[in-house]
Amino acid sequence: MEKLSIIKIGGNIIEDETSLNSFLELFSKLEGKKILVHGGGKRATHISSKLGIESKLINGRRITDKETLEVITMVYGGLVNKNIVAKLQALQIDAIGLTGADINSIQSEKRPVKEIDFGFVGDVKKVASNSIDKLMKADFTPVFCAITHDGNGQLLNTNADTIASTIAVGMSKIYDTSIYYCFELNGVLSDFNDKNSVIKQIDSKTYQKLLKDNIITDGMIPKIDNCFDALNNGVSKVHVGNTAMLTKENENFTTITL
Amino acid sequence: MEKLSIIKIGGNIIEDETSLNSFLELFSKLEGKKILVHGGGKRATHISSKLGIESKLINGRRITDKETLEVITMVYGGLVNKNIVAKLQALQIDAIGLTGADINSIQSEKRPVKEIDFGFVGDVKKVASNSIDKLMKADFTPVFCAITHDGNGQLLNTNADTIASTIAVGMSKIYDTSIYYCFELNGVLSDFNDKNSVIKQIDSKTYQKLLKDNIITDGMIPKIDNCFDALNNGVSKVHVGNTAMLTKENENFTTITL
Repeated sequence: MEKLSIIKIGGNIIEDETSLNSFLELFSKLEGKKILVHGGGKRATHISSKLGIESKLINGRRITDKETLEVITMVYGGLVNKNIVAKLQALQIDAIGLTGADINSIQSEKRPVKEIDFGFVGDVKKVASNSIDKLMKADFTPVFCAITHDGNGQLLNTNADTIASTIAVGMSKIYDTSIYYCFELNGVLSDFNDKNSVIKQIDSKTYQKLLKDNIITDGMIPKIDNCFDALNNGVSKVHVGNTAMLTKENENFTTITL
Repeated sequence: MEKLSIIKIGGNIIEDETSLNSFLELFSKLEGKKILVHGGGKRATHISSKLGIESKLINGRRITDKETLEVITMVYGGLVNKNIVAKLQALQIDAIGLTGADINSIQSEKRPVKEIDFGFVGDVKKVASNSIDKLMKADFTPVFCAITHDGNGQLLNTNADTIASTIAVGMSKIYDTSIYYCFELNGVLSDFNDKNSVIKQIDSKTYQKLLKDNIITDGMIPKIDNCFDALNNGVSKVHVGNTAMLTKENENFTTITL
């Protein structure tokens, strides 16, 4: 099976022009088939407040009302996505920017209202791996933003980590697929106060021990649970670290396998 | 040669949800290969003014400064384009939204500064017909907004009519290509005060006569000159009228041929 790398970057890289440019240079040099998934970062919040749209939070969680969805569509789908595509073209990568509505690549359903009405937020239902693969086979490099659709004309705000993992699961039927989650830290740390205490390998067995010993705690648990979900559904490897993990020289990041 | 229809819609259709929905329904029923090109309309001006960005005009012509380009990228490339794509998907059209940066489809160069510095405005240089055709061959329906790029990472604001005609010229090497320019009027009129006085056929010879008799005047002249440019460069037919010309029943529009 041919290899495919799915790289997810977050707000910290997108918001800083220099970080973004260095990352895109690394991404452009990465060998083999690849897909980029980007979040949106604080730019949407910034533009919302400029437009006089109040950010609505319930129990600390953001609500995507109609106006917020419009800003997200403008910022993620337009400003951020198309600038990344133009920059990649300048680096000789034949990029194509996508939401989940384009080529019906990612269908989701509006999150059902239980205690909280999250508004226009989508939970992924279906990834059109074969359609995405048509783009890959044509030597285009997909760049996904964190927007999906419900198939009935409604765009939906969707978590970028989830987009990366569900695309990876979908594509793992066709390619030997790895995910690279780029974030601020060098990897999963054994001591949160020591940024060099990277745990280089985690598998199901060591994960149970790390949980039992309270080394992996809090917000890191759902993140790693999601990685194991992807691995249990066909993804080969999940890498977690800063963008330098895309270079061959750097081995200081975390690799998660079953 | 297989037939290809390139349909261009302007602000009047985009700004009104009902008009847009009716148009997209007609577009979805149009037989054969097709490409949609849309302008942006007044929505960008509206959002600019909300964001406190002043519209700059020199001699009545709009200047695209850095901030205006950002708004255009958000509104045309994000909000308008992605909503059209989602609506087409709901109509079973496997649409894909594009700027000229995506798959390097339309390269332009920043308009040289002469008397006026238009800012980030691009004049089209090259259309990647073969790359666009890869999408068509994969049964995707391209939806272009009025943004191109310079190949060095810079997005550029570009006239939507020009995008439609240059894509048509590029694709005419591969397909028997027609353009449909949709606008407010029923077609080119012989009497501007009578909206039903549509001139149904114009060719090079009748055009000269219409010019000589002062029947076609003012702003319509450069528009029709552009149509003849496209025809002289391989496009088969150019149709001008309102969106009803996409239905088989309506024959009340203008067809321009060599």
